[in-house]
Amino acid sequence: MNELTPALIAEHQIEAGWHFGLTAQARWSDLDGFSHVSHRTHLVWFEEARNAYLAALGFPLVSADVPGPVIRELACSYERSLGFGDGVVITARTVWFGRTSFGMDYAVWRQGLVARGNAICIWFHNRASSKVPLPLALCDGMRLDGAAFRSTQAPRESRLFGLSQTNPAAA
Amino acid sequence: MNELTPALIAEHQIEAGWHFGLTAQARWSDLDGFSHVSHRTHLVWFEEARNAYLAALGFPLVSADVPGPVIRELACSYERSLGFGDGVVITARTVWFGRTSFGMDYAVWRQGLVARGNAICIWFHNRASSKVPLPLALCDGMRLDGAAFRSTQAPRESRLFGLSQTNPAAA
Amino acid sequence: MNELTPALIAEHQIEAGWHFGLTAQARWSDLDGFSHVSHRTHLVWFEEARNAYLAALGFPLVSADVPGPVIRELACSYERSLGFGDGVVITARTVWFGRTSFGMDYAVWRQGLVARGNAICIWFHNRASSKVPLPLALCDGMRLDGAAFRSTQAPRESRLFGLSQTNPAAA
Amino acid sequence: MNELTPALIAEHQIEAGWHFGLTAQARWSDLDGFSHVSHRTHLVWFEEARNAYLAALGFPLVSADVPGPVIRELACSYERSLGFGDGVVITARTVWFGRTSFGMDYAVWRQGLVARGNAICIWFHNRASSKVPLPLALCDGMRLDGAAFRSTQAPRESRLFGLSQTNPAAA
Repeated sequence: MNELTPALIAEHQIEAGWHFGLTAQARWSDLDGFSHVSHRTHLVWFEEARNAYLAALGFPLVSADVPGPVIRELACSYERSLGFGDGVVITARTVWFGRTSFGMDYAVWRQGLVARGNAICIWFHNRASSKVPLPLALCDGMRLDGAAFRSTQAPRESRLFGLSQTNPAAA
Repeated sequence: MNELTPALIAEHQIEAGWHFGLTAQARWSDLDGFSHVSHRTHLVWFEEARNAYLAALGFPLVSADVPGPVIRELACSYERSLGFGDGVVITARTVWFGRTSFGMDYAVWRQGLVARGNAICIWFHNRASSKVPLPLALCDGMRLDGAAFRSTQAPRESRLFGLSQTNPAAA
Repeated sequence: MNELTPALIAEHQIEAGWHFGLTAQARWSDLDGFSHVSHRTHLVWFEEARNAYLAALGFPLVSADVPGPVIRELACSYERSLGFGDGVVITARTVWFGRTSFGMDYAVWRQGLVARGNAICIWFHNRASSKVPLPLALCDGMRLDGAAFRSTQAPRESRLFGLSQTNPAAA
Repeated sequence: MNELTPALIAEHQIEAGWHFGLTAQARWSDLDGFSHVSHRTHLVWFEEARNAYLAALGFPLVSADVPGPVIRELACSYERSLGFGDGVVITARTVWFGRTSFGMDYAVWRQGLVARGNAICIWFHNRASSKVPLPLALCDGMRLDGAAFRSTQAPRESRLFGLSQTNPAAA
């Protein structure tokens, strides 16, 4: 369920171009030994945002007999640290999709940007252990998000180019 | 402690250029709901390999009063899935270092390549909450690993270029 | 922050005697390899409920320089399994307190009882690495919850008796 | 695979009566925000010890189509704290078995006792979602460990009595 509201966008200075978001709060178990939120916690948040985003488009994660996303690549850049109890907003959007894969961007916000991530996902039938074409209805939903079809025959560099583009501030 | 041996290199077809490695075995708690090792488990393995690598160079993770690595960026590409009990070798090396940061590559092997990752780390004093220069002795150790000094004034693209270079097979 | 409401109590058939509760939803990362919520997830939920309960009484978990709870013993019985996305209510209450320790009960509810747990906690100053007396104001708050002072000189059996008492259905 | 040796028994002062054990080392990701090993890490260790113990008796955790253990109850008492990198031995043994359930004891050792735990497990066919009788060959293996048949018709108190018995020092 999309939890992104104009009030949250204003409060956390979420940049334009995000239409889907979840809220979360850093748990005690999310901390590392120095009381900072572990770099893996952001990836748990991305995962929950991805699952909720796909469910909102009509494709919930159901069982190993129904195709769903598998991570092929992921990246994250960390701009600021977080502590116990900190409330955040996690945003998610699709950037491109191919025949059996798609690219998503994620970000974590708390009164400004905390972290950015992206992932290349495969649409995968787990029981059959094989990738399957993205459903048309899912692609249509992703188009609403601004994503466009991109041939997976493109050289890898162009796929990964999304990472450097979305991280200009970290240069 | 470095666990990499010629026998492990041969058994797991570890490519040339890696000089440090740990072994691990996938735990039941490492699995996701479809019985595959979670994409976050590889990052736990990278973390343990990084800590052991730095300890082997004389810089163990001790306390918040002693500088250590903080993750600024990380990326991982997943080539094959793993299941419960699978034994793996995790390799780690430094690729470059700057004044207060350094870049590492990681890989997971099991009779061939399983995953590749890389990270940009900041040398950080947690109690003071500030980055500090890399000790000369640490840089000397990293040089043995093949790493060279790289100005952090370089544009971000050149820093991230390591990712696409180390992932040619995934193009 | 206490999230327990009469509506939640009715919906989830929460038995009388609980005055504090949180809500949570099972995440994908909470599942084990057979798609059931791991038995450790309930303990994460208990931990968050404990921290929120203590914060509501004026004793938030702040830093290693401020006393807080350390687990001395814990137990949990699991009545029903949970799956991905299941929403739950976690209730918490203090059952007894001594000079430097206290006993809490927890339960997880989803349209009926899911699990019960209890813990013996020490009030602990982490930096000094020593147990310290429970503050009077905290004990006063625990009394509102129905807890009474119990000498920690009592034999262990009487302390643990709480476990069998709170699990009559599992006999 | 059983890793318990006379040398480990001597080094870690492991008491008589344990015949199966694993070794582990506390990871950075096992720590809580105060740099102590989380109370949930011990339960991960118990889980790995349980799985290895059952595998050693010929009943490895294979898939949802083959019966395996499900946790019905667990308890743990924590005697001492652990820090990053600490090496431990985890011991496991069966204390009793019934028709479809069994009780195990666990302990963590590091130059003395660190923690004790126990669990009541159900032998469970996950795909069918039903408990099934313990195989005779498994019961025979458990007998070698000293476990005896116990009717599950017994009152709960007698089942749980194992907890206080195995924790005399904590009274």
